[in-house]
Amino acid sequence: MAQTSIIIRLELDHEQVSFGDVAAAVSKAGGDITSIDVIHSSKESSIRDITVDAGDHSEDLLVESLKCLDGIKLINVSDRTFLVHLGGKIKIEPTLPIKNREDLSQVYTPGVAKVCKAIHENPGKAYSLTIKRNTVAVITDGTAVLGLGNIGPYAAAPVMEGKAMLFKQLGGVDAFPLCLDTSDTEEIIRTIKAVSPIFGGINLEDISSPRCFEIEQRLTDELDIPIFHDDQHGTAVVVIAGLLNALKIVNKRINHVRIVVNGIGAAGVSICKMLLDAGVTKLVPVDKEGAIVCGGEYTHPMWQWLADQPQVEKASGSLEEVIHGADVFIGVSRGGVLSGSDIQNMNERSIVFALANPDPEVNPEEALKHVAVFATGRSDYPNQINNVLVFPGLFRGALDCRAREINEPMKLAAARAIASVVTDTELNEHYIIPSIFNEQVVPSVRKAIIEAAILTGVARRIPPDFR
Amino acid sequence: MAQTSIIIRLELDHEQVSFGDVAAAVSKAGGDITSIDVIHSSKESSIRDITVDAGDHSEDLLVESLKCLDGIKLINVSDRTFLVHLGGKIKIEPTLPIKNREDLSQVYTPGVAKVCKAIHENPGKAYSLTIKRNTVAVITDGTAVLGLGNIGPYAAAPVMEGKAMLFKQLGGVDAFPLCLDTSDTEEIIRTIKAVSPIFGGINLEDISSPRCFEIEQRLTDELDIPIFHDDQHGTAVVVIAGLLNALKIVNKRINHVRIVVNGIGAAGVSICKMLLDAGVTKLVPVDKEGAIVCGGEYTHPMWQWLADQPQVEKASGSLEEVIHGADVFIGVSRGGVLSGSDIQNMNERSIVFALANPDPEVNPEEALKHVAVFATGRSDYPNQINNVLVFPGLFRGALDCRAREINEPMKLAAARAIASVVTDTELNEHYIIPSIFNEQVVPSVRKAIIEAAILTGVARRIPPDFR
Repeated sequence: MAQTSIIIRLELDHEQVSFGDVAAAVSKAGGDITSIDVIHSSKESSIRDITVDAGDHSEDLLVESLKCLDGIKLINVSDRTFLVHLGGKIKIEPTLPIKNREDLSQVYTPGVAKVCKAIHENPGKAYSLTIKRNTVAVITDGTAVLGLGNIGPYAAAPVMEGKAMLFKQLGGVDAFPLCLDTSDTEEIIRTIKAVSPIFGGINLEDISSPRCFEIEQRLTDELDIPIFHDDQHGTAVVVIAGLLNALKIVNKRINHVRIVVNGIGAAGVSICKMLLDAGVTKLVPVDKEGAIVCGGEYTHPMWQWLADQPQVEKASGSLEEVIHGADVFIGVSRGGVLSGSDIQNMNERSIVFALANPDPEVNPEEALKHVAVFATGRSDYPNQINNVLVFPGLFRGALDCRAREINEPMKLAAARAIASVVTDTELNEHYIIPSIFNEQVVPSVRKAIIEAAILTGVARRIPPDFR
Repeated sequence: MAQTSIIIRLELDHEQVSFGDVAAAVSKAGGDITSIDVIHSSKESSIRDITVDAGDHSEDLLVESLKCLDGIKLINVSDRTFLVHLGGKIKIEPTLPIKNREDLSQVYTPGVAKVCKAIHENPGKAYSLTIKRNTVAVITDGTAVLGLGNIGPYAAAPVMEGKAMLFKQLGGVDAFPLCLDTSDTEEIIRTIKAVSPIFGGINLEDISSPRCFEIEQRLTDELDIPIFHDDQHGTAVVVIAGLLNALKIVNKRINHVRIVVNGIGAAGVSICKMLLDAGVTKLVPVDKEGAIVCGGEYTHPMWQWLADQPQVEKASGSLEEVIHGADVFIGVSRGGVLSGSDIQNMNERSIVFALANPDPEVNPEEALKHVAVFATGRSDYPNQINNVLVFPGLFRGALDCRAREINEPMKLAAARAIASVVTDTELNEHYIIPSIFNEQVVPSVRKAIIEAAILTGVARRIPPDFR
């Protein structure tokens, strides 16, 4: 859970109230004062900012209890989370200063003309002479942001900026957020194609299903830079990584296990595809209407694609029915769709990834009694399936080898690389996936991506450390 | 002129050649060795990088003369200008580090959701909680880049990156370059509207005339953030600034002088409009077919607009004809369209701004004999008309007061602010315009823009220093 710190600016009338009274009121309301800044002080009164950790208690109640005190004037109440976002979370800096007229004539007119001409004659030089080499766009239309849904491009920006921060800090990648004021599929494709020249890659983000499939596919076909819809593949890569390690713990082989995937949206489709690529032979994709059946007919093109795969089971049924005897459950759906007894009905030494946020598909306390390995999307349980493990290293590798695209073998290689960061001696049911702060993750994913890109012929450059 | 430094990596066979031989060869070819780095050295041979200032001499000749030496192997020749551009000239950085899981949960999920919700409820909060407050897009379609013409979006990028550097260094503005892979007017308008939510302003750049007029006008009408086509108005603002000071020197009043503007493209149209706003009563706009005549009929909408203005002269004629008796000539056309005797035919104490690059409309040596004040776009003569004086302070001001648009009074105020940086005691015919490194320029322009924005009702915020 995010810590709820608030900063309260208040004025104390020294004749009526002491700071001790304030501290007592805060404590009584369940708050904890973690810092005090005196902004202004005189004999009669003082203005102070107090930072209060409200814990699980109501911030409103806390503020109300202060308002009740005589001699206290509340000037402002700021949430600390808001302060972190104030003015945005990324900035753009020159790589070198322009100190004098000569510098200016080199980076700008007239010297820059020579550089422009060189790229005009050989467009490939854009990779060496512009920011293209290290720059990706983080693009959303704001239609499926976190669990908030269609909140639009303006409200989506803080997420995209946060992603850009992670891109730089973890992967050394320059990422710029673009929040599109359109949710029309064709218009999104046209816009991204139009702005693509300056970018070496495109990270699509929080675009709702099923439009996200066509947008990604069309851009992959029509542009020669890698396109990666993180909500689909980021989650899928970490799920596969976690699954590979979980299977080692229960000593089952991926081509023998029966896997139920619940929620066939953006992430669910990509998970199913990767499972098939990884060798799964018994797959049961489930959506709201029950299991998607091999040989069935569906209007949703991705469901139809699944129904055409021979590894998908023929038996139909509800989630509660098909989960009987399953070795693995992967949920990317919504909270509380399964009970503890449903989990009990799975095969012995079962693996459950309940990734719905903030409430998992099954109550963790109930599930833990019946499973061998349990993972969620939450940071307050072990085994957090977090796609921050993927995109920094994946784009670092794709940019370094100037990959034309991100293909299935590259994603599978990234999953194996993430799994391999957890050594056999470290591996246990509470530690199947490394932390996002583990410094081996990005280099491992980068290496795997570059090797797979070279092997599949989509690398346009061999990085020096691979020559 | 840009200094032409090249870096030459060469291998010397010590038995056949000494470094003295190399230095002698460079000198003989007119070059000057300014630094040496030994990359590798052994008894038999060494590899060195020598930086050579080629001055006005041919780089090719210099390289050839080294190739002729026995025992020299040329490994690589790099132009120093290219080295400055290697990997691009801007980078994107987080405003704060993510040190631990708690930081992560504040800048990214789940804490960020609260910030998204706040913007969703009140979109105006995008200005305080995202980078919108300080971020502009520098957007081109690559159709009119420097003097190079239509070189496309990839080759245009180095100019846009240079501009982004200047935005940050001079104005503290975060600017990101977007180079559009389309030159269709409607497509450009659609694309810019689609990407606009993250930006607080749009700087259009190097878009060819006449499309630039419609693109700017439509975006101004359809978006609520300031749109500024620098090639039109940046140049116009500095021209007016320089003219105001030049008129002081010749002791003539702007509403009395007769002004010929040659070249009615992007910059020419904006200069004419600003001159009329500044009070000019006798204007002669001239293009390739001669003077645009008051009351005439033209297919070009901007020419027609000029023909409809009562301050435009009725008399027709060629440039050579209409320049007779003019007080001011402003050229934004091409090199060598005027001779020294044409300038001689102007009124006494004439002012000539010959801004074509790299060759001015009239040879400076010839013009200087006959004029009171002379200005060019070049840095190797006094009075350089450089639009770098405008955009950093203009956008700094527009962002700080959240201006809805950049209107004519704001541009005129910016011109007056730039002119005022040159004090009456400093003012002389060789110093009518401040240097771009003059630290008073940006604050002066910012202040003027904010005041004019407030006065004309387009400011949505009063900055603290104006309250």
